[in-house]
Amino acid sequence: MDHLLSIEDLDRAAIERICDRAASFSEVADREIKKVPALRGRTVLNLFYESSTRTRSSFELAAKRLSADVVNFAASGSSVEKGESLKDTILTLGAHKPDAIVIRTPWAGSAELVSRWTPAAIVNAGDGKHEHPTQALLDVHTLRSRLGALDGKRIWIVGDVLHSRVARSNILAFQKMGAHVTVAGPPTLIPRGIEALGCDVRFDLRDLPEADVVYALRMQHERMDQAWVPSLREYAAVYQVNGKRLQPHQVLMHPGPVNRGVELSGEVVDSPQAVITAQVEAGVVVRMAVLYEVLAGNRAKDRTPITAAGAPA
Amino acid sequence: MDHLLSIEDLDRAAIERICDRAASFSEVADREIKKVPALRGRTVLNLFYESSTRTRSSFELAAKRLSADVVNFAASGSSVEKGESLKDTILTLGAHKPDAIVIRTPWAGSAELVSRWTPAAIVNAGDGKHEHPTQALLDVHTLRSRLGALDGKRIWIVGDVLHSRVARSNILAFQKMGAHVTVAGPPTLIPRGIEALGCDVRFDLRDLPEADVVYALRMQHERMDQAWVPSLREYAAVYQVNGKRLQPHQVLMHPGPVNRGVELSGEVVDSPQAVITAQVEAGVVVRMAVLYEVLAGNRAKDRTPITAAGAPA
Amino acid sequence: MDHLLSIEDLDRAAIERICDRAASFSEVADREIKKVPALRGRTVLNLFYESSTRTRSSFELAAKRLSADVVNFAASGSSVEKGESLKDTILTLGAHKPDAIVIRTPWAGSAELVSRWTPAAIVNAGDGKHEHPTQALLDVHTLRSRLGALDGKRIWIVGDVLHSRVARSNILAFQKMGAHVTVAGPPTLIPRGIEALGCDVRFDLRDLPEADVVYALRMQHERMDQAWVPSLREYAAVYQVNGKRLQPHQVLMHPGPVNRGVELSGEVVDSPQAVITAQVEAGVVVRMAVLYEVLAGNRAKDRTPITAAGAPA
Repeated sequence: MDHLLSIEDLDRAAIERICDRAASFSEVADREIKKVPALRGRTVLNLFYESSTRTRSSFELAAKRLSADVVNFAASGSSVEKGESLKDTILTLGAHKPDAIVIRTPWAGSAELVSRWTPAAIVNAGDGKHEHPTQALLDVHTLRSRLGALDGKRIWIVGDVLHSRVARSNILAFQKMGAHVTVAGPPTLIPRGIEALGCDVRFDLRDLPEADVVYALRMQHERMDQAWVPSLREYAAVYQVNGKRLQPHQVLMHPGPVNRGVELSGEVVDSPQAVITAQVEAGVVVRMAVLYEVLAGNRAKDRTPITAAGAPA
Repeated sequence: MDHLLSIEDLDRAAIERICDRAASFSEVADREIKKVPALRGRTVLNLFYESSTRTRSSFELAAKRLSADVVNFAASGSSVEKGESLKDTILTLGAHKPDAIVIRTPWAGSAELVSRWTPAAIVNAGDGKHEHPTQALLDVHTLRSRLGALDGKRIWIVGDVLHSRVARSNILAFQKMGAHVTVAGPPTLIPRGIEALGCDVRFDLRDLPEADVVYALRMQHERMDQAWVPSLREYAAVYQVNGKRLQPHQVLMHPGPVNRGVELSGEVVDSPQAVITAQVEAGVVVRMAVLYEVLAGNRAKDRTPITAAGAPA
Repeated sequence: MDHLLSIEDLDRAAIERICDRAASFSEVADREIKKVPALRGRTVLNLFYESSTRTRSSFELAAKRLSADVVNFAASGSSVEKGESLKDTILTLGAHKPDAIVIRTPWAGSAELVSRWTPAAIVNAGDGKHEHPTQALLDVHTLRSRLGALDGKRIWIVGDVLHSRVARSNILAFQKMGAHVTVAGPPTLIPRGIEALGCDVRFDLRDLPEADVVYALRMQHERMDQAWVPSLREYAAVYQVNGKRLQPHQVLMHPGPVNRGVELSGEVVDSPQAVITAQVEAGVVVRMAVLYEVLAGNRAKDRTPITAAGAPA
């Protein structure tokens, strides 16, 4: 595995390999010395065009626990603000010879583009509404730890699917692992034609009790201004996952941060069915596994240097 | 010592133990290799809800000199800005399994609350107007280095006591070390009933010459808009510590950053009586001692895992 | 070498020594483990009063590859914003006992001033319009790698010389290495009397073909508002280095970030004549060499402690 650009690129065996390795790193996370020397002397560059302190610090911690050096490069206050193109930024940062670049941007497809411009291993930490593959992997890892296997499980993804990169990656990943996925939410927030991904679509939560896993998406406050839903109160009345709707046998997930009282009621967030904190915990070990996979796993093989015009041969 | 939440929790022996350890770390700070391996493989998370680059970088340096890994998490640009509650943020970050969380917030009592929500050791780096215990410890350490002991010393704390978390922590700490504390400032900036802490109160500086130590507080420019004092010029005329008011035998302290020409005149800042730079220097070694105390000191004992709803058992 | 404050302080031998060491560090940069233990246990403080993520991260990486600890201190959100003077900031940060301070400010001459206030080694990362010595060193290093030696080479520096700290440092450095320098640009953007530095001046690009090296400067968009040039389009028509003006034998340089379509056309940026990415690559190894020079090179000798009033003796 040279890069992690999207869930689409991974088959079930690759997802399982990453989760298995994450499980082995979980033991490290419980030790007093939480560090392994696997990536000593390697440099991981966190390049974030959107602020996401949670994802960034999860990757930073993962890299540090593998003994890599980490350089954080926020796009604000940088040459990016001075109007430099993404390509020139990558050629510049690539000249610093990082071993891996973890990249978050608002542009769909950018991670794949970037991987053509630099010999560094690229890890997609979210590219617009396209994908957020490490989120999907950590969610699969969390469910495997809880349920053993995902085969035949019914997973409902509820809420603002339209604006969610999490939804897209997770639909793909859950299906590859043998689960059956249903997306549910207001018609304005379900992308047209999403059935093409192989999932079912519902516009209400009447059949929610059939789910084994309920995955609630974050409702962005700013959507209100854009009139995607009439009001948060009305949204909550129809689509909030709360004590009345959640069944005792169901596992509750959320990518965080939670809006208590909007997509989830406080009671279900604090219930033992919620694995939201376990998801965050999985984030660090899954990202350790991904960095290990793209760096240490490739140790023997030489990476092809980029020889595009403007870059050093 | 599991946490450092407030000076109130410490007795004189604990304060002395921390200062003694800080003194031993001072020798490390003077070496070419300023690092000891005491906290190798441990993770310290700096969680700052208010920007305070000085305090943050002092803690960062302290952790790095103990060989810990440091992750800085600024609340701006983070999930916090997206409306996440403090509790959910702590449950999330706690799932990253940091060994210690250094936390600065604008909310009094938050450090204590946070210590209930995560198994990490909590170090209070300032919680609203409540406390700033490491500041008090570094001030005690500075005075012990200068004066030997604080017993019987008369310490005047001058200025905006009302808005100062430093004042409260320092009154408590100086008294525990045997000093006698007087607070002085304009009536609008001295909290009612502060005598209950055991200190004297003055509204002018007439008796300042009796002090052994003069501790000037920072005058916040923004207070002017709120009409706490008529003008900075008028404040300075009555309460500025300057060459006329400071006696040759007195030690001058200030928590920084100084407003030259407001609470202190430039001449006293630059005089040999000022130990302001020594206070900053003490900041790093005292914070090393505190981190050592809450982490390395607890090595043998298992921390109780948090089992509150929403957190992993 | 105690500090790197300006190119003026360096003679040809010193420049060559730094470039030779940078060349030896280039081999390290190509290894899988890109780290050497030269500065283990040393602390490098990055103190940036202007945002410059590229320069900052280049220094950060250089320090980390030498195994130093790095603390980044951005002036925004810090005591600096609360009105602290540069001197007080330096006395404070100096009390943290960093081994080196890398400093970027908008004030000409500030690096030299700072070196008087702290015992730390000072590396000037740009002080106003005065100097940017590591940029000049990395440019010399890039040209030496490409051309062998600079003796007798004709180097044209084209564009906004007036507002460029790069121009000043590079004119000095290139001349010390035996090159002949011509500056060219609109009369409003060439400082009066610059011939005193020993360079030629041109107001058009007619004789550009005689150059061996063309060094284009960045055109700041904000200059337009200030009417230094009538419009970017007009500027580009007369002074843009493009496929028509650049000769096949010429080496093209630029300090980055490039404004494609303004000072350079896209085609020349992407041409094999451009060494822009090689310059960035040189940045890391040259900064490693500079940090090594001011820190490891001084290991035997005691630095004179600062005894100025306000600082610890």
